[in-house]
Amino acid sequence: MSQKITTELLKQLRQVMKSPKYVQEPIQAYIVPSGDAHQSEYMAPCDCRRAFISGFDGSAGTAIVTEQHAAMWTDGRYFLQAAHQMDNNWTLMRMGLKDTPTQEDWLVSVLPEGSKVGVDPFIIPADQWKSMSKALRSAGHDLVPVKANLIDTIWTDCPQRPCKPLIPLDLSYTGVSWRDKIVALRSKMAERKVLWFVVTALDEVAWLFNLRGSDVEYNPVFFAYAVIGMNTIRLFIDGERMMDPAVREHLQLDSTLEPEFKIHVMPYGSILSELQAVGAGLSPKEKVWLSDKASYALTEAVPKAYRYLTLYTPICIAKAVKNASETEGMRRAHIKDAVALCELFNWLEKEVPKGTVTEIIAADKAEEFRSQQKDFVELSFATISSTGPNGAIIHYTPVPETNRTLSVNEIYLLDSGAQYKDGTTDVTRTMHFGTPSAYEKECFTYVLKGHIAVSAAIFPNGTKGHLLDSFARSALWDCGLDYLHGTGHGVGSFLNVHEGPCGISYKTFADEPLEAGMIVSDEPGYYEDGSFGIRIENVVLVIPAETKYNFKNRGSLTFEPLTLVPIQTKMIDVNLLTQKECNWVNSYHQKCREVIGAELERQGRHEALQWLIRETEPLIKAQ
Amino acid sequence: MSQKITTELLKQLRQVMKSPKYVQEPIQAYIVPSGDAHQSEYMAPCDCRRAFISGFDGSAGTAIVTEQHAAMWTDGRYFLQAAHQMDNNWTLMRMGLKDTPTQEDWLVSVLPEGSKVGVDPFIIPADQWKSMSKALRSAGHDLVPVKANLIDTIWTDCPQRPCKPLIPLDLSYTGVSWRDKIVALRSKMAERKVLWFVVTALDEVAWLFNLRGSDVEYNPVFFAYAVIGMNTIRLFIDGERMMDPAVREHLQLDSTLEPEFKIHVMPYGSILSELQAVGAGLSPKEKVWLSDKASYALTEAVPKAYRYLTLYTPICIAKAVKNASETEGMRRAHIKDAVALCELFNWLEKEVPKGTVTEIIAADKAEEFRSQQKDFVELSFATISSTGPNGAIIHYTPVPETNRTLSVNEIYLLDSGAQYKDGTTDVTRTMHFGTPSAYEKECFTYVLKGHIAVSAAIFPNGTKGHLLDSFARSALWDCGLDYLHGTGHGVGSFLNVHEGPCGISYKTFADEPLEAGMIVSDEPGYYEDGSFGIRIENVVLVIPAETKYNFKNRGSLTFEPLTLVPIQTKMIDVNLLTQKECNWVNSYHQKCREVIGAELERQGRHEALQWLIRETEPLIKAQ
Repeated sequence: MSQKITTELLKQLRQVMKSPKYVQEPIQAYIVPSGDAHQSEYMAPCDCRRAFISGFDGSAGTAIVTEQHAAMWTDGRYFLQAAHQMDNNWTLMRMGLKDTPTQEDWLVSVLPEGSKVGVDPFIIPADQWKSMSKALRSAGHDLVPVKANLIDTIWTDCPQRPCKPLIPLDLSYTGVSWRDKIVALRSKMAERKVLWFVVTALDEVAWLFNLRGSDVEYNPVFFAYAVIGMNTIRLFIDGERMMDPAVREHLQLDSTLEPEFKIHVMPYGSILSELQAVGAGLSPKEKVWLSDKASYALTEAVPKAYRYLTLYTPICIAKAVKNASETEGMRRAHIKDAVALCELFNWLEKEVPKGTVTEIIAADKAEEFRSQQKDFVELSFATISSTGPNGAIIHYTPVPETNRTLSVNEIYLLDSGAQYKDGTTDVTRTMHFGTPSAYEKECFTYVLKGHIAVSAAIFPNGTKGHLLDSFARSALWDCGLDYLHGTGHGVGSFLNVHEGPCGISYKTFADEPLEAGMIVSDEPGYYEDGSFGIRIENVVLVIPAETKYNFKNRGSLTFEPLTLVPIQTKMIDVNLLTQKECNWVNSYHQKCREVIGAELERQGRHEALQWLIRETEPLIKAQ
Repeated sequence: MSQKITTELLKQLRQVMKSPKYVQEPIQAYIVPSGDAHQSEYMAPCDCRRAFISGFDGSAGTAIVTEQHAAMWTDGRYFLQAAHQMDNNWTLMRMGLKDTPTQEDWLVSVLPEGSKVGVDPFIIPADQWKSMSKALRSAGHDLVPVKANLIDTIWTDCPQRPCKPLIPLDLSYTGVSWRDKIVALRSKMAERKVLWFVVTALDEVAWLFNLRGSDVEYNPVFFAYAVIGMNTIRLFIDGERMMDPAVREHLQLDSTLEPEFKIHVMPYGSILSELQAVGAGLSPKEKVWLSDKASYALTEAVPKAYRYLTLYTPICIAKAVKNASETEGMRRAHIKDAVALCELFNWLEKEVPKGTVTEIIAADKAEEFRSQQKDFVELSFATISSTGPNGAIIHYTPVPETNRTLSVNEIYLLDSGAQYKDGTTDVTRTMHFGTPSAYEKECFTYVLKGHIAVSAAIFPNGTKGHLLDSFARSALWDCGLDYLHGTGHGVGSFLNVHEGPCGISYKTFADEPLEAGMIVSDEPGYYEDGSFGIRIENVVLVIPAETKYNFKNRGSLTFEPLTLVPIQTKMIDVNLLTQKECNWVNSYHQKCREVIGAELERQGRHEALQWLIRETEPLIKAQ
């Protein structure tokens, strides 16, 4: 990790902050958030403006530059990295520490009276604008939108916004045509009495039109917006990709269609003016539905009285409930993924004792085995390949400076996944290639008990995922252990590996209730700073459960693991498992052996099959 | 339950809604909420204005009267009762049903353009005012404060506001003097940089000054406000009770004190003008701390820029953590309470088979036994004494029309508690005086497993109670059973039986983390409509736990039951318990036998002692 020298850049930025070419009046501070215009979790290179101006390229952080100061707010995961990457023009604001001021308090403490604070209105979500603006106003300052992004004005070698080809997905993958998705969306709009719906999140545009892209690494999405009316469909997207005959055919751009299903393709950059035109044409009681995370610019385009804002959009909620085609695709993807991991772990078992396998080599090997599988597209996130103490860094990705060699003396944690055309995977296994200590086995077994407690949980229809989070912790808690992350997140279907509106985390309350067809991860862990990390993660499907009394016909739910990769029995202290837990492990392994064994056989991967058979031997609990 | 004829009353109300004597301009609608000026859960008779105007006297409901309509919003618990008690001038708005409009939507649908909607600004909390006002304004109407309560103007025989004598509590009960509580409060104020704190909740005033009252049934509180400055203390309270020498001595009203501890006693009704005077004298950065549930009237008295609003006040949070004196008092109160219940259950066991004991007789008998105990003051809530199908009505209180006779064929559920000068109790036991069916025992045992799962839970310091709620449900969920209420609430120390800011409920998210010294209830249940209700409730104290690894020194917590009343073993299906659960029951019963046995012995209650010994025989689990 090298330090970026930012003296010249900051000088340039401070100049444009006063330049009438870009700002109506000089601004005394400029905020550079992490996000893009779609509130994406993963950024295209052209959107990494905060990294450009500061050098700090972690996934979360907000930079604020004033005439005198430059400060960076980030959380505990990135204190070290940010300190390494930024030069001494920057003050690191360590969020979560007691003495660290909020951005608002800091601004109020350093700004001269009556200052103007600028921000790109396309990057800041409307809800954040609102609270920041209120805090500044109450201290006599103003938050002002600066139309031209000031970083872009000084970023001379800024990469182009990606514009990669699109992949149309047919019904065998999606289960529902884009046309039927529009019909369903319009019926939700009618229910809420709104006339327009603005699609701003990239995965929502991709899902709605049954298209995928590769504009952003790991997320098969493309830059676009859509505005759906009761009788019109407007898709805002750039480039020649709309010339692709397969895409034109898929969207029926050249067919004679009923007008309400005719897609009007418009330039990506025209969304604001088009939305303003929609807003200007509204009469009372005609509402426009937006996510309350949509950008301030788009939200402001609609007069306040006509806005209908919700935390989760109807697309976000519909997308979370996978239909039979998507579920089958996810099953296929997870079978292929398990084949790749059986190959990998078999290979590691042979190679690790030689002392030649580093974290990066292991991660690359995992990718190599995955890429051999049918319909592999790319990884679904940066592989976490970590051994020994690196395993305790929850969001670790190996880089040359930290790259550690796997050995028979340390625990190895691999959290990885892929995008296949039929589904998205995300799996964590924790392995020992020598002899684990009693303490390591003890901790692993508590994590396993938590994993099973969630996976085997039965709960009534309508239960929110956050209510299951403590089940994953109970066995750890009994011994005074815990982990400081949520237990699970929603997983897309050949889409983002993290998606809303459901999950299993003590941190949220506003998650939507779980329902059959939703897919989440189940990934409790335990981390011992400076020595090891343990996590056991399956992707699981919410399915109806059979119960004796069925909640007075309210219905019961439980989970079915889609991930079918053996959990290393060497790491389990069988004496700490109940008979029920022991049976769960054995029946899970039985299923791995049957389903993945058959596929390994079919693919002629005999050595990996032998590995699988060895690793799925039933546990026997002493009576 | 009889119907109230409201034609004449509504006519009078509609007249005053137009009378220049009370309103500046005529109002087209008047809102009558349930609350009093202190956001109390239990009301004094003079504050039951909604019951007066409508006849409906359930604990929750909001009445709105327009020129043409009168409508009442209430929830599922009260649909039947409200329908019985209201005449056909009233439309019942069944909250929670799909087609029921919100108050705002309904008002918008019935009001003529540009209407004024009035409400008593002392009764409506500021946060409710805000949302209601916003909704009305966006539809072209105005919410206006009406100073004189319009119900009071037509309520000719309105009872007087109670003004009962006060009970000073000495240090042996409170552990901390009111003076030290003021010091601690001022230090919290200094931390947040506020200069004034307004105490609006009645239990917070009572706690702060170590005084108790009896203005409201079941809650040992009195009508008062307080305004605490960094150098002044103002207590707003009426009546001759301030003439009582014991009270004067307790508050040191006649002593020479440092000025910052001198209590200025002012008329209850002068709070608004005094607070306005405080507000008018503020300079920038001088803030006034209020609960965001404080009334709109008091909140508005402080200019917006000077308000500091929080969900929980520092008093609410400090009050929840009981000190050693309070904890010891709570233990003593629970021992006495258990003695009374052993007497009761022994008596019921003999009397029920005769067929002469009704729900009301049993409730009265419980009160009689409690009142024999030292320092008994009153009940802490209306006793829920319910047998058979009445047990399935969660908030049931027996009245002559519903009064059922206890028998050897039905389950009996008793949820009751008392105020003693040293503590507050709240306990539920579910008994069968004949032979329970296998299904009844099965359900009871699942509820017991849930009760134990919470009571024996170990969790890290800083855990919020709502994260434990699912532990109470897991055993029920496994069989497809559930209960539709939270698992626990905070309990006051000779104060309100329900208090914030902690609890154990899936419904809240904003609860404060549990810490050692907090006291909550643990009360899972199961209810079979039309046939029986089961609930097992102990009051439990949060205590430090011993764990193997102690959460990296973060510390561990668990619960200690304060309630020591046997759980009827006849109702338990021992085969459904794990060995650990069986041990929990046996050790709990061992403690009941030792602690309560000794007290029964001391009080010479030999027959009840024999009952206790019989009921605490250890369970034996077949191997």
